[in-house]
Amino acid sequence: MSDTVSLGEFEFDCGESIPDLTVAYETYGEFTGDNAVLVCHALTGSQHVAGRRRRGDTAGQAAAWWDDIVGPGKAVDTNDYFVVCANVPGSCYGSSGPPSEGPDGEPWGTRFPAVTVGDWTRAQRLLLDELGVPNLHAVVGGSVGGMNALDWAKRHPDHVDRVLAVATGARLDAQCLAIESIARRAITTDPDWQGGDYYGDGPDPVQGLALARQLGHVMYLSKSSMAKKFGRRSAGMDAARDAFELDPAAGFFPYREVESYLDYNGERFAERFDANAYLYLTRAMDSYDLAGGYESDSDALAAFDGEALVVSFTGDWHFTTEQGEELAEAFRATGTRSAHHVVESDHGHDAFLVEPEHVGPPLGDFLDSGVRGHAVSDTVERDEGDDFAPVHTSLFSS
Amino acid sequence: MSDTVSLGEFEFDCGESIPDLTVAYETYGEFTGDNAVLVCHALTGSQHVAGRRRRGDTAGQAAAWWDDIVGPGKAVDTNDYFVVCANVPGSCYGSSGPPSEGPDGEPWGTRFPAVTVGDWTRAQRLLLDELGVPNLHAVVGGSVGGMNALDWAKRHPDHVDRVLAVATGARLDAQCLAIESIARRAITTDPDWQGGDYYGDGPDPVQGLALARQLGHVMYLSKSSMAKKFGRRSAGMDAARDAFELDPAAGFFPYREVESYLDYNGERFAERFDANAYLYLTRAMDSYDLAGGYESDSDALAAFDGEALVVSFTGDWHFTTEQGEELAEAFRATGTRSAHHVVESDHGHDAFLVEPEHVGPPLGDFLDSGVRGHAVSDTVERDEGDDFAPVHTSLFSS
Repeated sequence: MSDTVSLGEFEFDCGESIPDLTVAYETYGEFTGDNAVLVCHALTGSQHVAGRRRRGDTAGQAAAWWDDIVGPGKAVDTNDYFVVCANVPGSCYGSSGPPSEGPDGEPWGTRFPAVTVGDWTRAQRLLLDELGVPNLHAVVGGSVGGMNALDWAKRHPDHVDRVLAVATGARLDAQCLAIESIARRAITTDPDWQGGDYYGDGPDPVQGLALARQLGHVMYLSKSSMAKKFGRRSAGMDAARDAFELDPAAGFFPYREVESYLDYNGERFAERFDANAYLYLTRAMDSYDLAGGYESDSDALAAFDGEALVVSFTGDWHFTTEQGEELAEAFRATGTRSAHHVVESDHGHDAFLVEPEHVGPPLGDFLDSGVRGHAVSDTVERDEGDDFAPVHTSLFSS
Repeated sequence: MSDTVSLGEFEFDCGESIPDLTVAYETYGEFTGDNAVLVCHALTGSQHVAGRRRRGDTAGQAAAWWDDIVGPGKAVDTNDYFVVCANVPGSCYGSSGPPSEGPDGEPWGTRFPAVTVGDWTRAQRLLLDELGVPNLHAVVGGSVGGMNALDWAKRHPDHVDRVLAVATGARLDAQCLAIESIARRAITTDPDWQGGDYYGDGPDPVQGLALARQLGHVMYLSKSSMAKKFGRRSAGMDAARDAFELDPAAGFFPYREVESYLDYNGERFAERFDANAYLYLTRAMDSYDLAGGYESDSDALAAFDGEALVVSFTGDWHFTTEQGEELAEAFRATGTRSAHHVVESDHGHDAFLVEPEHVGPPLGDFLDSGVRGHAVSDTVERDEGDDFAPVHTSLFSS
């Protein structure tokens, strides 16, 4: 089911409040008391995690982004689990955020308080209370959604049994911070952004938002996946070359497939997403630091006594396998039963979305059986006498 | 010495001509008949390759970019060699290009013909004729300057004895094409770009150009160099945060060192470089393909019977060591005496500029002794009986 709920006055980490936080969410399956799984969406995702075929869905703006993973008989089996996914505050798919209506009947715009991943976690906690779900069997998320999942282990260690952190890390590195900050500048230098107050009759800052998204696409793909997918090929004659004003010298040079891909996807994204929301959500991602308020990552995770699965992808340079391993080390240091499952892939960061055949099995088995799950591997070789995690590689042990 | 020369009517690869091509150049050392070394600058470099301490230099806009490598007693020793470096057509340091004056007394702007690396090579050939230099002992270049050097081996195989291709490749890959095309869109969407006609009283497209440069900086550094250089640290209280309009939520979040670095360098770059020139030169780089007009890279290099040194850097993701090895393979396939010298470095693409202690020795020794040069290593293990290249690693042989 798809619904919205009013959670009343909400104070954000930044200290500012809004009188009534609305959260748009979807649920799948039946709650039986101990089978709730919270799914956390990535930066530009929505609550519409699965169920592609349904019509007239209010969240149809963002495609069912994990439909290959979540559903009846799938890895996250909605015959067994009660799956909840909520659009995060600050986003634009029905939850309160910059484009939603403020108390004066006008869009909040940049008057909306700054949001953090911690705010998302607190809003999700309130939503689960509304739904009568005191404890989660598991929380799972990819990319910044993985940070959101980690934040649950940190803030609500007693309310989560299993954490699945996919294609994520404890914090962004300097390179990704740089790219995100350039993406924000592409939006704020678009004259149509107008200081964030573009909700009237004038044009939206579509070009700035499209450029920001194009940078995202480069970050989500890998060098080798781009080489295979596009190479240096020219786009077909019918490829539209009108998304951006061109430098006149362009006429002498080919319009390449990779440009066509970026232009097409940038434009489509600008139609479905709000520029201010993009600024807010990237700020939340950039500022997230698992160790924040603690001595270290493992200190932040110390109170968590469930099981943890970290999944990373060899071709991912947004969140690298090294960052995944650091995260796994933090769990290990607390004595948490954990595994770091590394997927060989050259799909880059997108792998967690586009390789369900490699992502589904470890996720499904971990949900059912924890680190003992058959398809769950780990980077650390364990002793024979160890009573869990029988499948191992040792990528990081040398 | 620093000078400009008029080379008369010049027809570009695109088929358009200008009535008088001006080339700004510098020379260092004395020409003795067989000691000429052409240095090819990178994308935003200038003819001012060395001699940092000279005053009143017309090319002072771009710092002497290889002063640690070129000069008396240095790796490219101007006591021995006659070094020539020319600003490429399409650039903005004194050679004809978009900001230079056209026949009507107005800046060319985007009426300037599209330029290619091949045009650069032909302009350099004409310049050398003017200077009375029929043959080159060597041509050396880094990044797109390395493509320029390769182009010499392809177009003037009988006029060059040694080619030094540093931090370069036979062509850009899809990922770099993507980033360059986003950078161009950042310029052309800047309203101050005005279709390229911004040379009047109005503002220049400084924000678009600064954004393009920021993307360049990310591409020129490496993930690990950025982590070490900036990490996630906040910039000091005195760091200017006024280069770009900020999203209001920024007030809650730190202004980081990496942002400060990008903003500072983006602004400085926009002061010294021309936005249209940036469009033109990236187009030239993007379109360069060593194999163009031939069956393959090695076919393009087949007529060259000098010696070749390819230098690549392990942390470089703009031009990878794999691309360097492909280039070296192309030379090997033609039977050219060649070596691929791989430098261990996490400085990224910038390494060829900022690690003179690692770049100078193989360059200097290769200039003097070819692939037999003491400091020249190769990725290929050779037979004992082989009469050259005694130092080897075998990075790529497994």
